[in-house]
Amino acid sequence: MIAGIIGATGYAGAELVRLLAGHPHITGLSLGSVSHEGGRIDALYPNFFKGIDAGLESPEAVADASEIVFSALPHGVGEDYAKRCGDRGIPFIDLSADFRFDDDEETFTAWYGKPYRYPQLRERSVYGLPELNRQRIRDMAARFPVIIGNPGCYPTAASLGVFPALERGLAGPGPVIVDAASGISGGGRDAARAFHYPECADSVAPYKVGCHRHSPEISRNFRMMAARGNREGPALIFTPHLAPMIRGILATIYVPLAASGESPPPPRPPSAEIEGRGAEIRDLYAEFYREEPFVRVLPFGSAAASGRVRQSNFCDISVHLDTAGTTLIIVSAIDNMVKGAAGQAVQNMNIIFGFAETAGLGALPAAV
Amino acid sequence: MIAGIIGATGYAGAELVRLLAGHPHITGLSLGSVSHEGGRIDALYPNFFKGIDAGLESPEAVADASEIVFSALPHGVGEDYAKRCGDRGIPFIDLSADFRFDDDEETFTAWYGKPYRYPQLRERSVYGLPELNRQRIRDMAARFPVIIGNPGCYPTAASLGVFPALERGLAGPGPVIVDAASGISGGGRDAARAFHYPECADSVAPYKVGCHRHSPEISRNFRMMAARGNREGPALIFTPHLAPMIRGILATIYVPLAASGESPPPPRPPSAEIEGRGAEIRDLYAEFYREEPFVRVLPFGSAAASGRVRQSNFCDISVHLDTAGTTLIIVSAIDNMVKGAAGQAVQNMNIIFGFAETAGLGALPAAV
Amino acid sequence: MIAGIIGATGYAGAELVRLLAGHPHITGLSLGSVSHEGGRIDALYPNFFKGIDAGLESPEAVADASEIVFSALPHGVGEDYAKRCGDRGIPFIDLSADFRFDDDEETFTAWYGKPYRYPQLRERSVYGLPELNRQRIRDMAARFPVIIGNPGCYPTAASLGVFPALERGLAGPGPVIVDAASGISGGGRDAARAFHYPECADSVAPYKVGCHRHSPEISRNFRMMAARGNREGPALIFTPHLAPMIRGILATIYVPLAASGESPPPPRPPSAEIEGRGAEIRDLYAEFYREEPFVRVLPFGSAAASGRVRQSNFCDISVHLDTAGTTLIIVSAIDNMVKGAAGQAVQNMNIIFGFAETAGLGALPAAV
Amino acid sequence: MIAGIIGATGYAGAELVRLLAGHPHITGLSLGSVSHEGGRIDALYPNFFKGIDAGLESPEAVADASEIVFSALPHGVGEDYAKRCGDRGIPFIDLSADFRFDDDEETFTAWYGKPYRYPQLRERSVYGLPELNRQRIRDMAARFPVIIGNPGCYPTAASLGVFPALERGLAGPGPVIVDAASGISGGGRDAARAFHYPECADSVAPYKVGCHRHSPEISRNFRMMAARGNREGPALIFTPHLAPMIRGILATIYVPLAASGESPPPPRPPSAEIEGRGAEIRDLYAEFYREEPFVRVLPFGSAAASGRVRQSNFCDISVHLDTAGTTLIIVSAIDNMVKGAAGQAVQNMNIIFGFAETAGLGALPAAV
Repeated sequence: MIAGIIGATGYAGAELVRLLAGHPHITGLSLGSVSHEGGRIDALYPNFFKGIDAGLESPEAVADASEIVFSALPHGVGEDYAKRCGDRGIPFIDLSADFRFDDDEETFTAWYGKPYRYPQLRERSVYGLPELNRQRIRDMAARFPVIIGNPGCYPTAASLGVFPALERGLAGPGPVIVDAASGISGGGRDAARAFHYPECADSVAPYKVGCHRHSPEISRNFRMMAARGNREGPALIFTPHLAPMIRGILATIYVPLAASGESPPPPRPPSAEIEGRGAEIRDLYAEFYREEPFVRVLPFGSAAASGRVRQSNFCDISVHLDTAGTTLIIVSAIDNMVKGAAGQAVQNMNIIFGFAETAGLGALPAAV
Repeated sequence: MIAGIIGATGYAGAELVRLLAGHPHITGLSLGSVSHEGGRIDALYPNFFKGIDAGLESPEAVADASEIVFSALPHGVGEDYAKRCGDRGIPFIDLSADFRFDDDEETFTAWYGKPYRYPQLRERSVYGLPELNRQRIRDMAARFPVIIGNPGCYPTAASLGVFPALERGLAGPGPVIVDAASGISGGGRDAARAFHYPECADSVAPYKVGCHRHSPEISRNFRMMAARGNREGPALIFTPHLAPMIRGILATIYVPLAASGESPPPPRPPSAEIEGRGAEIRDLYAEFYREEPFVRVLPFGSAAASGRVRQSNFCDISVHLDTAGTTLIIVSAIDNMVKGAAGQAVQNMNIIFGFAETAGLGALPAAV
Repeated sequence: MIAGIIGATGYAGAELVRLLAGHPHITGLSLGSVSHEGGRIDALYPNFFKGIDAGLESPEAVADASEIVFSALPHGVGEDYAKRCGDRGIPFIDLSADFRFDDDEETFTAWYGKPYRYPQLRERSVYGLPELNRQRIRDMAARFPVIIGNPGCYPTAASLGVFPALERGLAGPGPVIVDAASGISGGGRDAARAFHYPECADSVAPYKVGCHRHSPEISRNFRMMAARGNREGPALIFTPHLAPMIRGILATIYVPLAASGESPPPPRPPSAEIEGRGAEIRDLYAEFYREEPFVRVLPFGSAAASGRVRQSNFCDISVHLDTAGTTLIIVSAIDNMVKGAAGQAVQNMNIIFGFAETAGLGALPAAV
Repeated sequence: MIAGIIGATGYAGAELVRLLAGHPHITGLSLGSVSHEGGRIDALYPNFFKGIDAGLESPEAVADASEIVFSALPHGVGEDYAKRCGDRGIPFIDLSADFRFDDDEETFTAWYGKPYRYPQLRERSVYGLPELNRQRIRDMAARFPVIIGNPGCYPTAASLGVFPALERGLAGPGPVIVDAASGISGGGRDAARAFHYPECADSVAPYKVGCHRHSPEISRNFRMMAARGNREGPALIFTPHLAPMIRGILATIYVPLAASGESPPPPRPPSAEIEGRGAEIRDLYAEFYREEPFVRVLPFGSAAASGRVRQSNFCDISVHLDTAGTTLIIVSAIDNMVKGAAGQAVQNMNIIFGFAETAGLGALPAAV
């Protein structure tokens, strides 16, 4: 099968190239670039030298040559290609935000500043978080050329970290706080002062506090999962940070527990009772994700680390309880470029075509 | 004046050496080490070669040769020297936790696993966070050889970030969440797998979730400051992380606001009203710290970054509000080795002796 | 086929686990550890959680359960297992230095401080640098249970960088200088001050200047390749450095050219003539390595970078000429854990068993 | 005394601000910027917030308000201000290459692509490497408003590493090879892909192999020092690398020794004789630099590390000998922003005005 990648020259596009080059069901790649049409991928990415022998074509040419198309273009410019692929009867997996909000154009417009170009495409689109929508993706793919709104990186880490608590009704009133750190590749390939090595190395800093575009996506996911348990979704507070690492997202998430009483101000070292409750919730999480190939709920007592999932499609989750037992603390780690972008897109492709869900995604993370 | 440093061979001790070597009122250093007695500081620390010409003596010799003694020994082993200095009539600044809890031996013992050796020393000891206890430090130093319980690194960052909100009564019910990242030097000089470069580089991970020993110190500080505004202290949830940087602490702190109503689930981009309220709180913070030489409340719209205070005694604070206006988000950045340890100790010395509080601490952080 | 790994709990062992877990001809792993016998690999390496389901057995048990055994034990302790595997008729690939010096026990002893335990094993051993000894490896594997002395990381990078110049007689009199930087994982998994994050981050430093144990291995390789061109081997000067990165080796190699005249002291910007000669030598290199699956001779004008081969078995080589045209400057980059250790070992296994040489090693390096 | 800084908004300019703000003889700063005139330094550099209270003026205004002017402008644009300062009778310290080549306009033009604008200014200019030209700087400053051509970063590290060997006649025939690594701040403040965190972190790579503009400056310095010993200067081969660190230069330098015979191909571990000769050369180095306040010749057996001189004006030098005793290996470490730029400029100011040479430069490097 020929897979096409539009916007192949950004980091997410290049990661798609890397993953699809090793995919057992992909026999060829068609690579597209608006800004580098006519060039070669290995001239831009020397890591692909002698590995990927492909020129960069127009997005249209890619759409016409492929049996599935991935778009790693920026927000707001890919709808034409989504339409073209639909007209050709092939699925389209969009890594931008364009198809993440289904028919809620209002939210999309409020945060991304532009209207939908072809609103009717949303009849064929689905939010591509497999742990939330696997069956829906399968059903839609069976009926028509489906469009996948591939999730954002932070929303993936945050949602997978909180879903069990929401669905099982552990969360009490009060906002869920998602405090997350991203590696610098999350900012994309274009050089900018914030991502200039001397400025961001050896330093941690938040950005877009209280106003990051992934907020509405996270919040919507929370509501959807809470609804499955017949509950309201929680309020969300989301603070992203830049950390000096190439890849990775680590989200530390605070979920107020339903049955929490007054918390005694002087903290005490954790009691056996508290640890027992924490271990129970950990087991509930492990049960929730029992069938998921890419979610690893760590043994109680361990803590997730972004470096442990580097270059893999895993989401590692560790479950903790504060000493007073009032707040569930979930740590969720993904590789922002894999489960947070290209890997999840490949996972969606596998679901669409009925491949093994781990096909092309089986590489284990390295120890270091 | 001769300053003595006991435990000079750990990172905090070496940072004291660096700072005191450039202090205008210090004419000589007496360096002590239990494990390296008889050695030389520049053999252990080549950075001091041709800069510090001093051998390493016994702690007793240091105590007897100095007009002030700093102890950077581990918890639980410095009380004898504190006593000895008191007997000699000179002040003692302890960077361990031994004197941070005043007469609350129960809390100390619950978290540090040992009783006080000389409980009566606490009659002369004071918790050395100048922004909390400056006048008390001065008063006690005027009356007897004072013992300073120099604050922990996380408690310094967390306390300075929350004090104005607590004292002015902004904080409503619900726990204050302190989500903080530390550079690896916070783990000390001894090699260990968690601090082994290949294990901790390019990765962020939490540790001791819900059970870090700085929890009771932070919580106690919160209560003390809240009490000044005639309020109860809030519950605390504290999650420390290791981030791949040499120095620095960045604490992102969530304070539920008193007057918060229901938070509307779908987040919206921040409104002018919300931004106005945020700017007001920022100004309240700036006013609170107006006289403080080392606390910098950043302009509203900026975000603190740990790299911006590297090798300085500054604490940078930025003030943010979540889009729903229900939660105050404070970001507080210090250098864990300076304001979080050695610099604060020097600041305490300056207060004790009536030096300019910035003496020896005036170096600006570098741009990169 | 069942592959056994003795010493599976060090970094090289864990990298073998990662690579072999994805190898198309390996159906199972048998993992051995002297120090962690009875434990589980995923307890030591959480990155393998839910990925590798294997306990750690004794080296003897591994040797008896496998059809090929890899040893990642330290120098001087693996000969017994090599013997045991030979007795069982299966090949043994040793990542230590024990079998790198063939029958030259004198050199081994001079540098590694111990004699051979079973000198006769060297009748069945071969130095496993495929680009030097591929045919010999094949021939020996066809005749008896071969033992592979898997090359050191620096020797691999240095040898591949210089082989064409030596074999084709480009090198003139004077020493070849190998100035190389390694990532910190080269120091192994055990924590030590030199590899403690605060000590080695943000710093570059040489170590073991003039006396690194890889010197005799590099020098011997140079002599072997020079001999193929009927030439003497050059003298060697080798300076290793530690650089603040997790993986990777970058070797910058200076080869005095045969026909060099006097070099004019005031350097001038490179002329077209010099650039033409440089491009010619680059083409000679590309021709030399034309059939090699893992050596990439970059286009003239590019420079190799260690980050471009991360987690791959590639050796990237760039060819440069100094402005006076007297010295060939070769830059050679590998991942120390892959082509410098575990990947090369898998490549050797592929050769021994007649698998495609790239089997299990086809993953492309990521862009970042 | 008022010091002016033109080009204050680049990294070297900001480092001048930091150093001069703590200088005991500087009472005020006048900051100039072409691109940010009218702005404020602490808006561009939040690290200076509440520390430097200064607006950014035109270069002309700075020249007219100051008693000494530092220029951190790019090459080729500062001569007008040098002239203006001369007309006003005040010294001018230029951190660009414009005044590093004295009257050798041909070399400057060949490498920098433009002619001198006011060639006659070179009558008042001197190359400001104090360890080479201290007396000449003093003499010229006594006679007229001197112009200092402040050395480049690599030339400083390379020259100080080789000077004793050249002046004392240790160097034999054959090129001196300078293999050096620089921190990323050496590339300046402007964001570019080569300095984009995900591209340069966790990787080492050479750049401008054989054609870096610092080559002629290094070579000229070598010739000057060799001439003091009545010798020819050696040929130079210079290879710069980028290493993943914020600051620092580490140069590893290979000097062929005069009396070297044939080097025996199989390397042996270093003998006592070789070590004795190495220690002698180390002592010769220490003697050569005995009076120098900023050059530290490390004890024999130690190795210089760039991290050990971070934020200081020190140049650390370690002396090594290859095992065959034919090549001197010198390792030289500086902070590229301090001894490699702003610190050396301040050192030059101190010499010009007869201040203690260490004034404002006495801060010791931190341990980590």
